[in-house]
Amino acid sequence: MTLRVQKYGGTSVADIGHIKNVAYRVQKAFDQGDKIIVVLSAMSGVTDHLISLAEQASDSPDKRELDLLLATGEQTTAALLSMILKSRGYKAKSFLGFQAGILTDKISGKARIRDIDCKNLKQAVETGSIAVVAGFQGADEDGSITTLGRGGSDTSAVAIASSLKADVCEIFTDVDGVYTTDPRICSSARKIDRISYEEMLEMAILGAKVLQIRSVEFAKKYSVPVHVRSSFNEEEGTMVVNETKDMESVIVSGITCDMNEARITLKRVPDQPGVSAKLFTSLARAEIGVDMIIQNTRSDNATDLTFTVTQDDFELAREISQKVAKEMDAGEILTAREIAKVSVIGLGMKSHSGVAATMFQALADENINIRLISTSEIRISCVILAKYAELAVRTLHSAFNLDQKK
Amino acid sequence: MTLRVQKYGGTSVADIGHIKNVAYRVQKAFDQGDKIIVVLSAMSGVTDHLISLAEQASDSPDKRELDLLLATGEQTTAALLSMILKSRGYKAKSFLGFQAGILTDKISGKARIRDIDCKNLKQAVETGSIAVVAGFQGADEDGSITTLGRGGSDTSAVAIASSLKADVCEIFTDVDGVYTTDPRICSSARKIDRISYEEMLEMAILGAKVLQIRSVEFAKKYSVPVHVRSSFNEEEGTMVVNETKDMESVIVSGITCDMNEARITLKRVPDQPGVSAKLFTSLARAEIGVDMIIQNTRSDNATDLTFTVTQDDFELAREISQKVAKEMDAGEILTAREIAKVSVIGLGMKSHSGVAATMFQALADENINIRLISTSEIRISCVILAKYAELAVRTLHSAFNLDQKK
Repeated sequence: MTLRVQKYGGTSVADIGHIKNVAYRVQKAFDQGDKIIVVLSAMSGVTDHLISLAEQASDSPDKRELDLLLATGEQTTAALLSMILKSRGYKAKSFLGFQAGILTDKISGKARIRDIDCKNLKQAVETGSIAVVAGFQGADEDGSITTLGRGGSDTSAVAIASSLKADVCEIFTDVDGVYTTDPRICSSARKIDRISYEEMLEMAILGAKVLQIRSVEFAKKYSVPVHVRSSFNEEEGTMVVNETKDMESVIVSGITCDMNEARITLKRVPDQPGVSAKLFTSLARAEIGVDMIIQNTRSDNATDLTFTVTQDDFELAREISQKVAKEMDAGEILTAREIAKVSVIGLGMKSHSGVAATMFQALADENINIRLISTSEIRISCVILAKYAELAVRTLHSAFNLDQKK
Repeated sequence: MTLRVQKYGGTSVADIGHIKNVAYRVQKAFDQGDKIIVVLSAMSGVTDHLISLAEQASDSPDKRELDLLLATGEQTTAALLSMILKSRGYKAKSFLGFQAGILTDKISGKARIRDIDCKNLKQAVETGSIAVVAGFQGADEDGSITTLGRGGSDTSAVAIASSLKADVCEIFTDVDGVYTTDPRICSSARKIDRISYEEMLEMAILGAKVLQIRSVEFAKKYSVPVHVRSSFNEEEGTMVVNETKDMESVIVSGITCDMNEARITLKRVPDQPGVSAKLFTSLARAEIGVDMIIQNTRSDNATDLTFTVTQDDFELAREISQKVAKEMDAGEILTAREIAKVSVIGLGMKSHSGVAATMFQALADENINIRLISTSEIRISCVILAKYAELAVRTLHSAFNLDQKK
């Protein structure tokens, strides 16, 4: 018998009508004889509404209380879907995060799953129930409700699938699957049939919003087969799976564009040991994640240090940088918020050279100036001015022959 | 040091502005040096909105799932008030029902509190926090979320107050206290300064909506001093306390009117043992509470049996009655939904005669026909046609000298 974990995102449960449609999909799978665990997001817009309520209540809402507030969104959809299934004669039972056994750390707003004890879910599906889980949430060891961050329901679903060794974790969303790039930017973008966890991870990190980063990490770590597909049609979507030999023949799988970063440069940082450590320790203590870090040596025993953070963390990161710069007697701080990071991703880069050269040449041909560069084994990223972002994506999509066959 | 439990109803937390005002009241009490536990209802209208969502989802929403859905209302207000208090520099911590240690039975929608373990609340207030509790909810022994029925937040508050032996349980609402009758019906109604648990219980049962019945039972059982007062001004409200000697000098304390009942009569019920038991056992099994029961003997070895139930339970009660009537070979079923039950209540009735005579004469003087009568030690109730309800209330209010001094 097949055990399927099905996750439905906010647009798939946007209102009662949509939730009723989700119920039909769930029923269909159940009627085939599969065991089904459903993981739900909040209705689209609800989380934003709750955040705006919190912002009316307080300029900087307490994070523990914000988690409690936000958790009501998924609680609502889980209760409603269970009601609908039951009223149609199916056995169904709702589970909040803590009832589903999701134990997290105490970092409110972006808690990480520490442990997961799925015995209640297991018992439910084994006694013929459809288990309906409120995604995005768990509880810490004190029993306080926590949330897993934007897109956290993906992680709930993958974590449950891994814990119960489900045959597949289906992520139902409002797009048909994972695309070579954002189809809204590039009309010739193609759906990818199969992609490796590594590539998916890079794409998620770099701004492809289809899956939460942590969910991909989780899926990779425990080899959970993930199927990203549309909740509005019956088409096959994208399978996210372990790397296979043939995957390396595709040199570049996708192009991403992340507009959510901002750049901070500290000028004339004294060129001596421990200086970078001081800055990045201060940033880490404030729970600010730093993405790119670039350092250039200068001739006068000082160096310029540049890094990028998310737009959300920018103001705090700038304050901390100014404080540290003053302490270490560095020069002025330069910042830029109107930037974009375009990246090419592909397992094939491991075994093919010349990808960087092709990328830089393609951008140069369009007179797009590259401000920062960073690379990983399967990725090359360039920071450019935000106004060139869409042009860059389309240019690279063509340059690496990703355009749809006409 | 004084421990105060403060409960704020739906109109007191209707929106963020109102919740901010509640926060000022809570702060004021805390700043006086009192320990404060706040119990909150959902924003007014929210519970009804959630019920309508559930009704869109299903014609008869599953009760366990409905409880989960409804519980989001109080979760929201508890999170928001805690945020506001914290952003103003106060230590505050929210608690859901189960986190506050409220263990209930499994009767979804009208669960009863089985046990309450306030160690978490105790610890919070003893370490200088304001504890903010989501009212109306608890959890059963399996960890499923349950709700305590309409007005259940009153019961949450009184139960917590009794468990922690609080000095007072303040019920903040949108009226100034308990009135001799509904001021919307009778403009000369007066606020009562002190009332006994017994009288308050009769008034709550009979439709005075200011306190949930169970909360009064709880308060009476554990002698919790309850102060019903307005959240919109600083006036003293009504103290609900143990009976004192002087209370008996007031013959009638209040007049109530309950429009929420419906009457069912079974004609020609065989006049033999066990017949009533059969009917009322069937009703009890369906969890239908029966209020008045009247039986008249007839000459032909059969009797008419009349009883009243709430409007909500009416349809189901009628179906059950029809089934039982058929089985016992009784006659037709007569029903009436357009009825009102007007009652006079007073501890003084125990020691004063003539109250019934005064009541019946006053109604007769207005040509109001009495359909059913029932009495308790401190109450006389008459069922009349609904269209005479307001006239009856005003007439009785005058007849027992309850009108405000001009």
